[in-house]
Amino acid sequence: MQIRIQKSILVDAVSQVSKAVSQKTTIPILTGILCQATSEGLTLTGSNSDITIQVFISLKHDETDQVFIQQTGEVILPGKIFADIVRKLPGDTVEWVVGDQYQTTIRSKQAEFHLNGLPTQEFPRLPQLEEENVVSIATDTLNALIRQTGFAVSTSEARGVLTGVLIQLQEGILTCVATDSHRLSYQQAMVEVSNDVQLENVIVPGKSLAELAKTFHDQDEVVDIIVAENQMLVKTEHISFYSRLLEGTYPDTNRVIPKNGETHLLASTRDLLQSVDRASLMSRDGRDNVIKWTIKPNSIEVNSASQDIGSVSEEVAAQVEGNELSISFNARYMIDALRTIESDQVKIQFTGTMTPFLIQPVDTSDSLHVIVPIRTR
Amino acid sequence: MQIRIQKSILVDAVSQVSKAVSQKTTIPILTGILCQATSEGLTLTGSNSDITIQVFISLKHDETDQVFIQQTGEVILPGKIFADIVRKLPGDTVEWVVGDQYQTTIRSKQAEFHLNGLPTQEFPRLPQLEEENVVSIATDTLNALIRQTGFAVSTSEARGVLTGVLIQLQEGILTCVATDSHRLSYQQAMVEVSNDVQLENVIVPGKSLAELAKTFHDQDEVVDIIVAENQMLVKTEHISFYSRLLEGTYPDTNRVIPKNGETHLLASTRDLLQSVDRASLMSRDGRDNVIKWTIKPNSIEVNSASQDIGSVSEEVAAQVEGNELSISFNARYMIDALRTIESDQVKIQFTGTMTPFLIQPVDTSDSLHVIVPIRTR
Repeated sequence: MQIRIQKSILVDAVSQVSKAVSQKTTIPILTGILCQATSEGLTLTGSNSDITIQVFISLKHDETDQVFIQQTGEVILPGKIFADIVRKLPGDTVEWVVGDQYQTTIRSKQAEFHLNGLPTQEFPRLPQLEEENVVSIATDTLNALIRQTGFAVSTSEARGVLTGVLIQLQEGILTCVATDSHRLSYQQAMVEVSNDVQLENVIVPGKSLAELAKTFHDQDEVVDIIVAENQMLVKTEHISFYSRLLEGTYPDTNRVIPKNGETHLLASTRDLLQSVDRASLMSRDGRDNVIKWTIKPNSIEVNSASQDIGSVSEEVAAQVEGNELSISFNARYMIDALRTIESDQVKIQFTGTMTPFLIQPVDTSDSLHVIVPIRTR
Repeated sequence: MQIRIQKSILVDAVSQVSKAVSQKTTIPILTGILCQATSEGLTLTGSNSDITIQVFISLKHDETDQVFIQQTGEVILPGKIFADIVRKLPGDTVEWVVGDQYQTTIRSKQAEFHLNGLPTQEFPRLPQLEEENVVSIATDTLNALIRQTGFAVSTSEARGVLTGVLIQLQEGILTCVATDSHRLSYQQAMVEVSNDVQLENVIVPGKSLAELAKTFHDQDEVVDIIVAENQMLVKTEHISFYSRLLEGTYPDTNRVIPKNGETHLLASTRDLLQSVDRASLMSRDGRDNVIKWTIKPNSIEVNSASQDIGSVSEEVAAQVEGNELSISFNARYMIDALRTIESDQVKIQFTGTMTPFLIQPVDTSDSLHVIVPIRTR
C-alpha cells in the first residue's frame, strides 16, 4: 500500500472512525483502525462490539486529488496513536507506505514515523446488508428523534431491551420510543421510504444512538437507514455507521400513555424548567430526587425539602383546567423532558395523584413524555 | 443577619470563595462558607487546610447600593448547595435573612429557599498578618511567575519542600524557583517594596499557587503580598488569598544551574516544541518518556522509539556552535519548559551528554529552565 493524501481529509476521517475505537476492549485488534486502499479510494474502519464506523475517501473529491493511490493494500494501525500522529503531522500532505510485515511509514514534511502495523485478516468483517428496504431521513430529523427519546433508556445493563430505543416504521411514519419503566419518551417523524418498507421491533442500544447523533452531527444532509436481522446501517456517500440491535421483544407501551386527563395545565416551558431545576437542588442527593407539585387554580406550587439541608418553594403561573391536585415525582425526569421541548409553552395532563402523567409541547402532537409519580408519605 | 444584595455580585463572590471549599474534608465545617454581615459590608470566607479565600463586598460599590445591610450577623452555609442556589436564583436581587438557630431564608422573586445554617464559632480564625512588610506586584507579573515555575514542582507529597515553589526577594527582585530534582525552572521580576523588605526561604505549595493564579486571573490590577511565619497573604481591596507555607529549608539550587556550555544552539521555539511533542507520541507510554536529540552542525535530529509501537525521527533547523552531541531526556519536561517560553527563539546550552542543560528565551535572562538528561543504553 502506498498513498498520498491531504492531511486535513485524513484528520477528519480518523477522528470519525476513532469514535468506534475503544482503548479498553477484550479483543486487542479492535484497538486498531483498519485502513484499506483500493483502486477506488481509501477506507478507514473502527469497530467495537456495539458499533462500527467506516469512512470512505474516494479518489476524486471536489475536483482536487485529495487522495492519490500509488499502490493498493491494507493494514491495521493502533487507533489512538495513529490518530494523534495524524493530527500532529507538520505538513499539508501525507505520504503513507505499508511495506513488508505491515511495517508502516508515515511522512509529512520533515517528520517520519514508523509504525508496527498488524495483518488485517482477523478484523471482523462487516455484514453485507441488502439495500432493498431503505429509509431516507434528514440528519436533523434523525438527530431530533434521538435527542427527544435517547435520554429515557435504562442505563442498567440488566434491563435488556429497555437499554435501547424502539424504532418502528409504518405508513411512512417513523416512531421512536424509550422507557426505563419510570418514564417514557416518544417522538415521531414523517420519512421517505422506498417500496412499502415497514420496521417492527427494531431496538437500537441507547449508547449507539448517542454516537450516531455525533457522527452525522454537523451535516445538513440525508442519510439512508437499512435494517437487517441484527444490524442497523446508517449511511451517506462517505460514512457508514453500523450498530448491533438488541434481541428480544420490546414491551407494548401504548397502554402506559394516559388518554384522558382530569387536570390539564398550560405553562411556560422555561419557567417550569427553571423552577424544577431549583427545586431539585434540595432533593438531588436523595434516592429518588423527589419534588412535589401542587396544582392550584392559576399556578403550580413547586416544593422540595431535605431534612439535612433545607427546603424550597415557589409558584409558577399556569392556566389550569380541572381539579386541584398534588403529585410527587423525580425532578430529573421532568428536567430531561422539559429540556427537549422546543415550544415556549408546555401542556401537562394528570389523571390522578398516583397515575402516570403526560407532558407535551403545545404546538405539536409528534412528541410526548410520560412520568410515573412517586408515592410519598 | 438581614441583607439585600445584587445577585450578580453575590454569584461572583460565592464563586471566588468556593475555590477554597472542599467537598471532601475531614473537618465538616470546612465544607461550608462563612458569611458575615457587618456595618461595613458582607464578607464571605471559604477555607481548606491549605488555602483560604475571603471576599469583601463593601456597602457602597460603584456608587450604587449593591449590598444593603438591614441587620448584622453571621452564619455558615453549606458551600456547594449555597453556590448552586445563588447561581440559579430567578431575580436580580436577593433577600437574605438569618433567624433563630441559624435558620436561613434566601428569597429572590417567586423562589424562597430555607437552609439549615451552622454556628460560626468553630470556623478557623484567620491569622492577623502585620501589614508592615508589603510587596506590591501586578497580577500579570505574579501570574507569569507562577506559570513559568509552578509546573516544575514535585507532585509527590513525600518530596516535602520540593512540592512548593521557593519565593525570595532581595533588592527589589522577586525570584521563583521550582524543581522536582529532574528539572528546574526559575523566573525573576522587579517589584515595588516598602522599606527594605526581604523574603528568604518562603516555600508556597504548588497547588496553592495554581489556585492563586485563578483567583486574580482576569484582573488587571496590583496585589499586595504579605508573608508571616507560616502564612502568605495576597490581597486586593476586595479579595484576600491566604496560603500556608511549607516548613523546611529549600535546597540550594544555584549549583545545579550550568554556568558555561560546550555546545550552544538557537532554534525556533515553536518548531522545537512541535517536534518534541510529536516525538513524545512514541515515548509517552514508557516510564521516563525518553526522546533523543542529536545536535548536528545546522540542525537537531529528534528521535524516539518504542519497541511495541514504532519510531519517529525528524530534523529541526538550528544555529549550532560547539561540539556535536547526543543527549536523551524526558520529553514532558522539554514540552513544559518550551510552552512557557514566549519569545520566538530559544537558546540551549549543553555541557555534556550526562550533565544538566540550560534552556532560555533568547530575549531575556529573567527566566531559565534546567533539565537533567537520562542515561540510555
